[in-house]
Amino acid sequence: MKNFRPALFVTGWFLAGLALIMWIPTIYMLVLGDEEWRKFLLSSVITLTAGILLAATNRQRGGFALVPRQVFVLTTLIWLMACVFAALPMLLIQQMSYADALFETMSGITTTGSTVLTGLDHASRGFLLWRSLLQWIGGIGFIAMGVLILPFLRVGGMRLFHAESSDRSEKVLPRFESVSKAIVFSYLALSLACAVAYYFAGMSVFDAVNHAMTTVATGGFSTYDASMGYFNDTPSILWIAVVFMILGALPFVLYVQLLRGSPSAFWKDRQVSGFLGIVLFFGVLLALVNGLVQGRDPASALTASFFNVVSIISTTGFASEDYSLWGEQAVMVFFYLAFVGGCSGSTSGGLKVFRLQVAYKMLRRQLDRLVHPHAVFTERYNNREISEDIIRSLISFSFFFALTIALLALSLSFVGLDFMTSMTGAITAVCNVGPGLGSVIGPAGNFATLPDAAKWLLSAGMLLGRLEIMTVLVVITPGFWRG
Amino acid sequence: MKNFRPALFVTGWFLAGLALIMWIPTIYMLVLGDEEWRKFLLSSVITLTAGILLAATNRQRGGFALVPRQVFVLTTLIWLMACVFAALPMLLIQQMSYADALFETMSGITTTGSTVLTGLDHASRGFLLWRSLLQWIGGIGFIAMGVLILPFLRVGGMRLFHAESSDRSEKVLPRFESVSKAIVFSYLALSLACAVAYYFAGMSVFDAVNHAMTTVATGGFSTYDASMGYFNDTPSILWIAVVFMILGALPFVLYVQLLRGSPSAFWKDRQVSGFLGIVLFFGVLLALVNGLVQGRDPASALTASFFNVVSIISTTGFASEDYSLWGEQAVMVFFYLAFVGGCSGSTSGGLKVFRLQVAYKMLRRQLDRLVHPHAVFTERYNNREISEDIIRSLISFSFFFALTIALLALSLSFVGLDFMTSMTGAITAVCNVGPGLGSVIGPAGNFATLPDAAKWLLSAGMLLGRLEIMTVLVVITPGFWRG
Repeated sequence: MKNFRPALFVTGWFLAGLALIMWIPTIYMLVLGDEEWRKFLLSSVITLTAGILLAATNRQRGGFALVPRQVFVLTTLIWLMACVFAALPMLLIQQMSYADALFETMSGITTTGSTVLTGLDHASRGFLLWRSLLQWIGGIGFIAMGVLILPFLRVGGMRLFHAESSDRSEKVLPRFESVSKAIVFSYLALSLACAVAYYFAGMSVFDAVNHAMTTVATGGFSTYDASMGYFNDTPSILWIAVVFMILGALPFVLYVQLLRGSPSAFWKDRQVSGFLGIVLFFGVLLALVNGLVQGRDPASALTASFFNVVSIISTTGFASEDYSLWGEQAVMVFFYLAFVGGCSGSTSGGLKVFRLQVAYKMLRRQLDRLVHPHAVFTERYNNREISEDIIRSLISFSFFFALTIALLALSLSFVGLDFMTSMTGAITAVCNVGPGLGSVIGPAGNFATLPDAAKWLLSAGMLLGRLEIMTVLVVITPGFWRG
Repeated sequence: MKNFRPALFVTGWFLAGLALIMWIPTIYMLVLGDEEWRKFLLSSVITLTAGILLAATNRQRGGFALVPRQVFVLTTLIWLMACVFAALPMLLIQQMSYADALFETMSGITTTGSTVLTGLDHASRGFLLWRSLLQWIGGIGFIAMGVLILPFLRVGGMRLFHAESSDRSEKVLPRFESVSKAIVFSYLALSLACAVAYYFAGMSVFDAVNHAMTTVATGGFSTYDASMGYFNDTPSILWIAVVFMILGALPFVLYVQLLRGSPSAFWKDRQVSGFLGIVLFFGVLLALVNGLVQGRDPASALTASFFNVVSIISTTGFASEDYSLWGEQAVMVFFYLAFVGGCSGSTSGGLKVFRLQVAYKMLRRQLDRLVHPHAVFTERYNNREISEDIIRSLISFSFFFALTIALLALSLSFVGLDFMTSMTGAITAVCNVGPGLGSVIGPAGNFATLPDAAKWLLSAGMLLGRLEIMTVLVVITPGFWRG
């Protein structure tokens, strides 16, 4: 265990940071004159104490470097501990059960957006703000992990986006710092722009700020039980959401390049064009289903279709209406869309577009190999050669992804959930989407009625999905702790 | 096209062979004094004429050798043509629609076992015999393809079972001949043993012969609408079916080794132990669900559980009762079992056990790689090294497999089928299992009520699944026909 003291040390400082963020709702409640500020402050004090204790007891003399093995532990630990302590305000304010509090916090911090709560319209403002904040910090945390950590760990083929192709490691740190700053700046700017747009389209300041945070984070928490359906009479709000959900699902490294003066990076990136193509195809397809099969007027069909398609593909999980009533085709399409996800290095979960694209290239190549067994093929992605190492890592990820969903669905059926709820619950958790399908957890439903065991299982699924599965799996293999 | 004349020539001879097999029901009807013999004879004459014409117009002077490209065309062509001509008796006798006749024939020849027919208990005996014969010849055809052709074509990782590891091709043909003979002998012996066992357990001679053919072929057609549920009062019949479905799902090369005096091959084969382990695990699991959750008596719970588990894993598709009533856990378990399949070189469809085992090894290795990025790992399967080539081929197969099911389910939802019917219909077709889940095509249901478009789609799915998908896909890529 001694090896992992640096990981515990860093985790301690992260908790201290989380405690500071708890001051935001504390101060907001103080300004509103609401007694609830005491509960946020208490949560903050507990978290800060725990964080400082953890950091102090694992202090490192001089500098230290983290090897991959430590980074795996660190990553898993930070998300898990953040979730445990971020649940404190939930427990103190809402008198929720542990299972409910953990589920809601996990759903927040992983930007999933499934909820066990009802009566949001009349809930405490500080509490609602805390839920939105959870998604917002979860979103930037996931971008940072995807851009800075996962490529380094060779998880899920993310090495394809490794900043440095060579091993000149001494140059990595300064680059990391400038990239991190640019990403945080982009995230803040997008959130601010989204809030302003929402406000001018008619939202209150409170709603605009909350929804901006959960939109850009592709999280999907709302301040209303009806989710974005509350704003169905204002299509402009839904379209603003469409734009910012898409922006949140694009690779954030491209915003960094935009800031450095090369906007053309967006048009040259195959992942961006692939993502937009998928959105366009399914948006139009479901608009046609809505218009032709369901006989809806074109404008409403387009809005409803694009809003809900983008919400699911970007793994946001807002719902404007119960799209499972659009017919059997729509149910099947939404079932698949939950897997897709956005781009790498964004706030989106799911399989992600680059994996689908690389898998497609690999399958094409394999068919060619059957006809020309001795030909040599090399494939490129975004002008970068796809090494065997990356393909292997990407494929293993897909298998683990499918396996995790299958086992989670099986476990859910054993705690008594019906087929549709088990299957789509597992998918929506691991892909960090939000709503499932069926009468219980569908877009018009809620996770409240599930048994506690199902909530624990789904919470684990959300964490696994958010950490790209293998980051957690490798930590729980016996071989990891040996030698 | 000139290149493909050898393929057309061989297909012609196969059709002639099919015409000969049609004499079996012809003679049987003649013996029974049933006028239907004329219709079988007519079918035979048409098929024979077509076959001879095809062979004669594509005759090759001297000998000829088939290259992989021709073998792909040949394999796809034979199964497709066999299906078209084998549907003739269906059309002539039962006055079925083309969609129904093709579906039923495809379901027979691919040993799937889904049916669009009701009133089997009172159907013509010649017709019932023809259905069973279709599965029986489909079964031996699939074994031959799996043992002799697919390893040669590098499809789906079957090269792992290539008889020759080197390229000493001149030695292949005599070996092929002796192996083929031994396999046919094993198939005949198993079928005979099964029929005798059924007869002594209480079936009529006609039922015993028909069910023996569809059991050993892991096909699943029955002479009763209730399928094997007709014999629910005679558990010994169900257990005989369990034994012979398992025997039909084992690698037939092992029977060849048994005939050559090495029975130990069975205990040393990892695929056999894996398959039996899976059967045992899920048989006991669902017996427990039946006994503990559903409160059934132990003997009946064990029989029902093992019979239906083996029926689905072996992709036979007999049903003894509606197992979807055993609870949500059972529905989920049966949903997954449909994917598993039996062993390579057997009559079973599905993913097949060796692919699951190799995938498991690959995933374990990948987790080790995350901790030890620079270590070199080599894996063995049945004392044979798993080459990168085989892993790549096996993985591509799994992806194409999932993709085929996903696209088929999507298409089915677009012709109006509900989610459960679309999804499990696609799975049961591509895995060549038989029943789906849900109220329409579940174990108590029937495919008759589906729209024609769905029947065409499912027929295509059955063929794709039986030909291990890539064999067909490669033929329909443009690159295949170029150059």
